[in-house]
Amino acid sequence: MIVILHPDSALDTIEGKAVMEYLSARSGITPHSHSITGTGRTLTEIYVVGNVAGLDQAEIESLPGVEKVVRVSREYRVIGRHTGDVRASGFTYNGVRFDPQSLHVFAGLCAVDNPANVETMMQALQDHGQVCTRMGAYKPRTNPYSFQGHGLECLPYVFELAGKYGIRVIAMEVTHEKHLEEIENCLEACGRPTGVMLQVGTRNIQNFELLKNLGRQNTYPVLLKRGFGISLTESLNAAEYLASEGNTRVIFCLRGMKTSFNTPHRNMVDFGHVPVIKRMTRMPVCIDPSHSVGTLEHSSDGIPDVFHATAQGVIAGANMVLVDFHPRPAEALVDGPQALTMEELPIYLEDVELTRETYLKRIQRFQAAS
Amino acid sequence: MIVILHPDSALDTIEGKAVMEYLSARSGITPHSHSITGTGRTLTEIYVVGNVAGLDQAEIESLPGVEKVVRVSREYRVIGRHTGDVRASGFTYNGVRFDPQSLHVFAGLCAVDNPANVETMMQALQDHGQVCTRMGAYKPRTNPYSFQGHGLECLPYVFELAGKYGIRVIAMEVTHEKHLEEIENCLEACGRPTGVMLQVGTRNIQNFELLKNLGRQNTYPVLLKRGFGISLTESLNAAEYLASEGNTRVIFCLRGMKTSFNTPHRNMVDFGHVPVIKRMTRMPVCIDPSHSVGTLEHSSDGIPDVFHATAQGVIAGANMVLVDFHPRPAEALVDGPQALTMEELPIYLEDVELTRETYLKRIQRFQAAS
Amino acid sequence: MIVILHPDSALDTIEGKAVMEYLSARSGITPHSHSITGTGRTLTEIYVVGNVAGLDQAEIESLPGVEKVVRVSREYRVIGRHTGDVRASGFTYNGVRFDPQSLHVFAGLCAVDNPANVETMMQALQDHGQVCTRMGAYKPRTNPYSFQGHGLECLPYVFELAGKYGIRVIAMEVTHEKHLEEIENCLEACGRPTGVMLQVGTRNIQNFELLKNLGRQNTYPVLLKRGFGISLTESLNAAEYLASEGNTRVIFCLRGMKTSFNTPHRNMVDFGHVPVIKRMTRMPVCIDPSHSVGTLEHSSDGIPDVFHATAQGVIAGANMVLVDFHPRPAEALVDGPQALTMEELPIYLEDVELTRETYLKRIQRFQAAS
Amino acid sequence: MIVILHPDSALDTIEGKAVMEYLSARSGITPHSHSITGTGRTLTEIYVVGNVAGLDQAEIESLPGVEKVVRVSREYRVIGRHTGDVRASGFTYNGVRFDPQSLHVFAGLCAVDNPANVETMMQALQDHGQVCTRMGAYKPRTNPYSFQGHGLECLPYVFELAGKYGIRVIAMEVTHEKHLEEIENCLEACGRPTGVMLQVGTRNIQNFELLKNLGRQNTYPVLLKRGFGISLTESLNAAEYLASEGNTRVIFCLRGMKTSFNTPHRNMVDFGHVPVIKRMTRMPVCIDPSHSVGTLEHSSDGIPDVFHATAQGVIAGANMVLVDFHPRPAEALVDGPQALTMEELPIYLEDVELTRETYLKRIQRFQAAS
Repeated sequence: MIVILHPDSALDTIEGKAVMEYLSARSGITPHSHSITGTGRTLTEIYVVGNVAGLDQAEIESLPGVEKVVRVSREYRVIGRHTGDVRASGFTYNGVRFDPQSLHVFAGLCAVDNPANVETMMQALQDHGQVCTRMGAYKPRTNPYSFQGHGLECLPYVFELAGKYGIRVIAMEVTHEKHLEEIENCLEACGRPTGVMLQVGTRNIQNFELLKNLGRQNTYPVLLKRGFGISLTESLNAAEYLASEGNTRVIFCLRGMKTSFNTPHRNMVDFGHVPVIKRMTRMPVCIDPSHSVGTLEHSSDGIPDVFHATAQGVIAGANMVLVDFHPRPAEALVDGPQALTMEELPIYLEDVELTRETYLKRIQRFQAAS
Repeated sequence: MIVILHPDSALDTIEGKAVMEYLSARSGITPHSHSITGTGRTLTEIYVVGNVAGLDQAEIESLPGVEKVVRVSREYRVIGRHTGDVRASGFTYNGVRFDPQSLHVFAGLCAVDNPANVETMMQALQDHGQVCTRMGAYKPRTNPYSFQGHGLECLPYVFELAGKYGIRVIAMEVTHEKHLEEIENCLEACGRPTGVMLQVGTRNIQNFELLKNLGRQNTYPVLLKRGFGISLTESLNAAEYLASEGNTRVIFCLRGMKTSFNTPHRNMVDFGHVPVIKRMTRMPVCIDPSHSVGTLEHSSDGIPDVFHATAQGVIAGANMVLVDFHPRPAEALVDGPQALTMEELPIYLEDVELTRETYLKRIQRFQAAS
Repeated sequence: MIVILHPDSALDTIEGKAVMEYLSARSGITPHSHSITGTGRTLTEIYVVGNVAGLDQAEIESLPGVEKVVRVSREYRVIGRHTGDVRASGFTYNGVRFDPQSLHVFAGLCAVDNPANVETMMQALQDHGQVCTRMGAYKPRTNPYSFQGHGLECLPYVFELAGKYGIRVIAMEVTHEKHLEEIENCLEACGRPTGVMLQVGTRNIQNFELLKNLGRQNTYPVLLKRGFGISLTESLNAAEYLASEGNTRVIFCLRGMKTSFNTPHRNMVDFGHVPVIKRMTRMPVCIDPSHSVGTLEHSSDGIPDVFHATAQGVIAGANMVLVDFHPRPAEALVDGPQALTMEELPIYLEDVELTRETYLKRIQRFQAAS
Repeated sequence: MIVILHPDSALDTIEGKAVMEYLSARSGITPHSHSITGTGRTLTEIYVVGNVAGLDQAEIESLPGVEKVVRVSREYRVIGRHTGDVRASGFTYNGVRFDPQSLHVFAGLCAVDNPANVETMMQALQDHGQVCTRMGAYKPRTNPYSFQGHGLECLPYVFELAGKYGIRVIAMEVTHEKHLEEIENCLEACGRPTGVMLQVGTRNIQNFELLKNLGRQNTYPVLLKRGFGISLTESLNAAEYLASEGNTRVIFCLRGMKTSFNTPHRNMVDFGHVPVIKRMTRMPVCIDPSHSVGTLEHSSDGIPDVFHATAQGVIAGANMVLVDFHPRPAEALVDGPQALTMEELPIYLEDVELTRETYLKRIQRFQAAS
């Protein structure tokens, strides 16, 4: 780390001394100062060596007299993609491979309501060759008086029906470590007919206690949804929390951002960041077009915005799609208005496939031409 | 609740029927339609009666054919200030009264580091007549490799020193229900020399499991920090979570918002919302000038921004001030650069007092003139 | 327009009377009140007829006692796509057709620097079959001491070289009506070897005097860049300004939004709104991947973010692409770091073509299946 | 300026060479490289001397291989408050002194509607000892079909009535240089009975042509309203545009920011930045509580939010207050719902006076204690 002082703040000023004092007070840290003269000015830099990971860059930058702090060490040690990084990416869970080269669609119910709808959904997925789905049992809701999900009660029939229809991975949100335990117990009791990918919602992105708990187990992979109101750096740090505790089977999900500008979409579609996540980290990237767009309105070409948003993610290399379907959207207990129907499932899957093929062709042609 | 359809969407259109179908499918809900003709147009409205609290307004508004949804019932049932509301506001905890008319300063350490600094702080507070403080034991940090607070280990000396110096209430952040248990056990073991106000940080504002846990106890009041990236409505709903579970001893804290515009302040000072919270709810309102401003820079009049931000909250009726002090800011383990020193404590308290007197005079004169 | 009062605000309350008084005071406006009783409550609605276009909805909504205002009349009268709208879309300019079905790439120089680079660019475009380009002569810059473009001085050689290489339309930003005059005079003097599409930058999106001036002429079409810090409604109102003055040859350009979340991109890519603009209006939609992304970094698949962002716009039906190229980006006077090179031009165009074909196939399959 | 390369990017890498090539290509610029070895790493820095003002820091920072750019030279050369700056601040216009120590209230009509209301307003101001007012003649409106102000037509009676009631300065928005000419001609024709402070609205903050035009004259001071959707740096650069053209009689006005968080206020009150502007620049600082708050709702203490917001600005040292009043708010053509009445004028002025006295006492006590 290098701390650069303002041109006015030499080491013998009050501010300069305070900075050196601040740094020297940190254990395992040694600051070395360095003066550079040029163009009639003298610039002071302090090289900080030792255990710099514990230092808070923002704090140091806000010390009086400090112009800039340059961190030499890399962020995101575990999840990051570093120069010359030869570590493998991706993982296999319950027979399904997730990595930066693969693509899986997780179509399913935002919130489980009853066994009939779960079965209809699972059967439709099997009919169209799908082995992954989403099923919401624990629903965090903004309003304390809203429906909060059927929770533990629905797990047995969800898992059994998944097994019956060949579903291998269910993405399911958890909001407390007790849910992890409930899922584990229920899966065990059912004879593990399927697998679960634990989903951390955007509202829990900085619930560090939950992240640490999910990071300390290796049984289940984690789908981490980007924070809708924090910087990308902060969201990636949340992913690093999981990894730093030991669980590196993490998929990062773009789900739209809260801005002043997203209307008439529910959130601001942020799939322009698909290549960014793939460049900065080794995590597979998921997109959630349903929560990003939040409407079934369609363009003047007849294609719904949810299809277009999906295509935008896939054409840029997304590895997973989380999308809301429901046999009878008008009856859905949560987010019905953004759910697609069983009739739309094959059209949607075909659209994804066509776009995916084009993505693969784009890579081929680009590599041939470059 | 009233659902207004687009002028193009009569009840006999596909969209109109779908809306009625959606509403009819909800248990405990009865929709009544109603047509209004005027200016050559016919407008359709659906009156929804019954258990409307369970309905999701945003979902209904996103149904095709729906123009607007007007909710007749009031939000924030428990914490809200409703027309003609005669319920009492405020509470007394450990001998200290908190309500929309009182003012308390909670000066203290953002993060507890060692007994010496805690004692210096407590003594200074006693010397200046203060009975409240802030002391951070559990520190949620964005980066997994940053210092996370001394936790349980520091509680005994913090509580004992508080008792020694007559401190009656310590604001202390918790991030998991196990911290509540640790605090309870330690206070009990020490003989309850002081009291604790449980603080929920901005990053946990939508950690609903934590809110529900803190709402289910009545021993400790809760200081809820506004979410820095969500709407005010969403933050107030979080306060209602606490109250709906049974704990109505809640103070709402403004602490600055994350925007594109706050630089050079750490966050965007949001104390313009002090009168808004006091109008909409019956909760006392706290301000946190340290985290809002995040710098010790001062204006051309010589007064630091932290003092000015404090005055801005107090002149508009704030009931509590949470502010970072430290005997040796350069050594502070967290947020040192924004901490004021022991020497500044009396000047700060005098500035608060002068501004508070002016606020009280403003009310008198306003009421006399109106 | 319908004004709905709070349940507490009947017509005989002070607030209710004030609302009626406010509305009655408007010329050409007649308010009719209407009471609805249900579930033990009485709701008051005021139907406003007459010249409602002059009323300010936000103002009325902020009157005490008002719950909601529902506007029955449609926004964006001229540019909007209304139910049952049979008006034609698009226009032909200088032999080139622009409409919601076409696609044109405008590759070129963000800022004109010298004749050699302009010629290299134009020749490369002709070699690859292009008849459109972008050439910046007037550059609005945030810092008053930055280079502001060569302006009038460079117009003659830009227009002559365009003619020489068969360029039919040049997108060129103007920031004052005098630039329009300079362009008109210079084109006339040169014998009109090419055409110009006037570009209004994001910083001038609410420079209503400029919009009115450009709207009062019909010679040149206008490319309007979305405001990076205002709502979509406000940006579409700016387009309506142009159209309401008489010029309906308007293309709307998405160019990324200013948020707290866009880093490491220069702006937040907003191409998820391509289908939204096409649904709400009859304007062709342009995307500007260069200013949105603002970097030449590439994904782990080797493809630059600018290519991916372009593909995301095109796969969803964009009609125009504005993209920065430069023969020697390191020498470019403005935005060099985001410019692609002449060598990348054919690869880029081929990538656009492949994605466009897929978009057309998506429509076919979607229509066949639906 | 200092350009710091990534640890991986030595001068002999492709990226390192490209950076040197980029810098060398700039005229009047000489880059000098410099290698620093430490902790097993080598860091390369490039010192850039010469005409660095023309360089674009963001561009250089986005070059591959660049870690950070540190600018040594100061921003805001003319308007800035620099270390050791001994230049005078403030100015006198038409007998009224504006500087960082003074305070003036500009109460008046957001939009001029008719002579009777103008006269009522002016008389009330004279009755309460005021010599400044606001009067909107040219109104930029988001919607092209909204009322746009009476413009030139109302100037004669506004100026004559101002003269009659002893008003010395009228703040009046202009949106084009022709308005400046109209004001000048009308004032001249009337015999200069009053003075005008030209107001640039938030929507024109980056209308650089307008800024340059207003900067080239010295007759009228300029009140520049902060951009509601750009960074503070960008808004201050707009002020520097005025000053760099020659007009240093500039007052900077805080008027609230557009965020996702301001509801129920119209904008997010940004008066926490009063001390920031006073520290960074030598401009007097104005606050506009009416447009920031945009409502007449009041706190539970009975005092309206507009009064509280005003007090928040004044207690922190604001030098000017722009506030909407109207004899009959319900009839106001623009922003009536936020206007205060003639009856409230003395109460408002007294509240400002009381708070101002407290601000002056705060400075005294702070200086005595420090």
